[in-house]
Amino acid sequence: MKFTHLFTRTIKENPKDEVSANAQLLTRAGFVYKNSAGIYTYLPLGWRVLQKIAQIIREEMNAIDGQEVFMSALVEKKYLDPTGRWDINVGFEVKAKGEETASFVAGWTHEEVITAIVTQFVNSYKDLPFSTYQIQTKFRNEARAKSGLLRGKEFMMKDMYSFHASEEDMFAYYDKVRVAYHNVFRRCGVKAYYTVAAGGDFTMSQTHEFQVVTDIGEDIIYVCDKCEHSENKEVSQLKDGEVCKICGGTVHEKKSVEVGNIFPLGTKYSQALNLLFIDEQGTKKSVVMGSYGIGLGRLMGTAVEVHHDEKGILWPESIAPFRIHLIALEGGELKASEIYDTLTQKGIEVLYDDRQGVSAGEKFADADLLGIPYRVVISKKTLEQESIEIKKREQQSTEAKLIPWAKLFDMLV
Amino acid sequence: MKFTHLFTRTIKENPKDEVSANAQLLTRAGFVYKNSAGIYTYLPLGWRVLQKIAQIIREEMNAIDGQEVFMSALVEKKYLDPTGRWDINVGFEVKAKGEETASFVAGWTHEEVITAIVTQFVNSYKDLPFSTYQIQTKFRNEARAKSGLLRGKEFMMKDMYSFHASEEDMFAYYDKVRVAYHNVFRRCGVKAYYTVAAGGDFTMSQTHEFQVVTDIGEDIIYVCDKCEHSENKEVSQLKDGEVCKICGGTVHEKKSVEVGNIFPLGTKYSQALNLLFIDEQGTKKSVVMGSYGIGLGRLMGTAVEVHHDEKGILWPESIAPFRIHLIALEGGELKASEIYDTLTQKGIEVLYDDRQGVSAGEKFADADLLGIPYRVVISKKTLEQESIEIKKREQQSTEAKLIPWAKLFDMLV
Repeated sequence: MKFTHLFTRTIKENPKDEVSANAQLLTRAGFVYKNSAGIYTYLPLGWRVLQKIAQIIREEMNAIDGQEVFMSALVEKKYLDPTGRWDINVGFEVKAKGEETASFVAGWTHEEVITAIVTQFVNSYKDLPFSTYQIQTKFRNEARAKSGLLRGKEFMMKDMYSFHASEEDMFAYYDKVRVAYHNVFRRCGVKAYYTVAAGGDFTMSQTHEFQVVTDIGEDIIYVCDKCEHSENKEVSQLKDGEVCKICGGTVHEKKSVEVGNIFPLGTKYSQALNLLFIDEQGTKKSVVMGSYGIGLGRLMGTAVEVHHDEKGILWPESIAPFRIHLIALEGGELKASEIYDTLTQKGIEVLYDDRQGVSAGEKFADADLLGIPYRVVISKKTLEQESIEIKKREQQSTEAKLIPWAKLFDMLV
Repeated sequence: MKFTHLFTRTIKENPKDEVSANAQLLTRAGFVYKNSAGIYTYLPLGWRVLQKIAQIIREEMNAIDGQEVFMSALVEKKYLDPTGRWDINVGFEVKAKGEETASFVAGWTHEEVITAIVTQFVNSYKDLPFSTYQIQTKFRNEARAKSGLLRGKEFMMKDMYSFHASEEDMFAYYDKVRVAYHNVFRRCGVKAYYTVAAGGDFTMSQTHEFQVVTDIGEDIIYVCDKCEHSENKEVSQLKDGEVCKICGGTVHEKKSVEVGNIFPLGTKYSQALNLLFIDEQGTKKSVVMGSYGIGLGRLMGTAVEVHHDEKGILWPESIAPFRIHLIALEGGELKASEIYDTLTQKGIEVLYDDRQGVSAGEKFADADLLGIPYRVVISKKTLEQESIEIKKREQQSTEAKLIPWAKLFDMLV
């Protein structure tokens, strides 16, 4: 994509109403636009990142036999009444103008809906197990929506639900999801700790969270500096500086962001919504369920919190909007266009800064802000040596490496 | 995908609360689930179809330089007040529990939001033209939601908006969109007529619709049986049986469904929301806009209305959930599994009916209901001749063709 074609522009000043690094940098770089408190639009560059995260999640959920669906955002009262969750005050009511009372909520979770749906298809133990997921917008009335993409009133979530004939089978699948989730987070370039959390009303006794250490986090975990065992503060007996009960290392308190969670639901929803099956002995039983969430925008925001410096973002290559940020400086335009065409034909994603009348300094500053992994510069100087200048965004020194044109293609393909 | 792996099942009886062919067939085949009146869940097979439609739309919008974004579903009052559309009664109000008055509407259109967003990035004629689109859920309070996917309270829509320095430039782009839309509909296997419509309050004088002829349609168009010129009833002087003013053919009245519409918005939204640019002479002017919609679910429902018979759906190959419906009959299971693996490895999408203890008749009936383009059968009989039986879904006769295994791969790759 050409820079002059993109309708967004970088912004020099930090937005006054944003305090988090992710919101400041993503806004300045033109990845997101704040519509209202806690409500964002994904602009072309931001949408590319979110789609890459979605694709990684799809691949990992499909690999553990998740079947993708798309439920409705509007959830009617009849679904939430049986579990008493119509009266829980976390969401938004939806009603036609002039109606006295609302009969819908803007979906903040879909356990009841998916349970009602699968009731139509499950009769026997032979119909089990299976799992199904969606990537959908969720709505929650967050009073303090001030952490950019980390906590929003409207956000995109992957929610998966699994259905089993026994608790054993559910926990076996639960473990597969744990591994798949670690794959997702690793592939998205963040290190997630697996922790036990207090389940609350939602679920069976113990639930689990995936926590990424970052200063802006609202959660606190204890992490052993030797074996990396971690525990949530709310359920832990540990304190900062204590000896790790597993390896004898020292445990430290860290701020963290929850990027995913998994819940053994048991039969709470299947009982409430009458999701039954006939087992091998001919006995009617309630289906055992699990549920598994990942916030896509939150994962994107967390990646920025973890990977940025004072100049801008440093995207992990797997979720970067482009792989190459190609810059033409004065005299290099013709060759740069040629290289842009060649790279694009080879299927390499390039953002080409083809702006004229913009200084080298300004172009470099924008490249640092946008955070695309490789910066490639073509100028009069590099032309004389039939070369390009290449620099990794993560590289600390400002010095770029001169390499011949042909070698660039070898390096990238 | 294996049939035994899919969590949905076909349903023998027509759902009592559905009158349209698209809703009846899509429900019975397990493509959709009705959550509430006018609100559907896309189940795995239906979601595959919708994603294929989305991909065709993306390709065609990207080809005319559309930049994809994703706006929020919640639209705050501040966006709709300047155009007076906060008070229009087509949508749903959204408010937190306990709040007196709503400050959000569930987005039913996004002209105001996108106009406010691009105001941040447009200063000069050099920033124009461009266009941007999203594929997003829309919400409208349809009183009579009774046509399945053709008219819903919640539905997925591609909405594109274009921004120009002059009316001439906007109309030049408008014409490109017209061509791209015809590509979309043709690729999705429906024949759409381009008609003039009454614009109403939304827009400049004339707007255009893309209409597909089908009995269930709520619109009426006049189509010439010779040159295929078409006009909307509401704006036409023509009557059924009259002479076509263009070619002298005869004009006939037909029921039709609107699958897309394009609007020359002019400066209505840019004036209300202060979207200005400085032209080459240094004069401040309002940006000229166009807007362009396609309903994805409606297009899917229309494809079913146009392509079905008394046995089930006949998907156009481009949007079919799978290309091959592979059926193993008694004795053919081993060879069928082998062929399934080979086809899948070659990247061919196969639904493999691997159910045991289900009769041939039942498997054939399900294949006809689901409507996948090619049915491939492997049985004891075909094994003896080292062959498979292949039949196109659209083929009228029940007779299938016997072809050697190897030839199947040649035929499909």
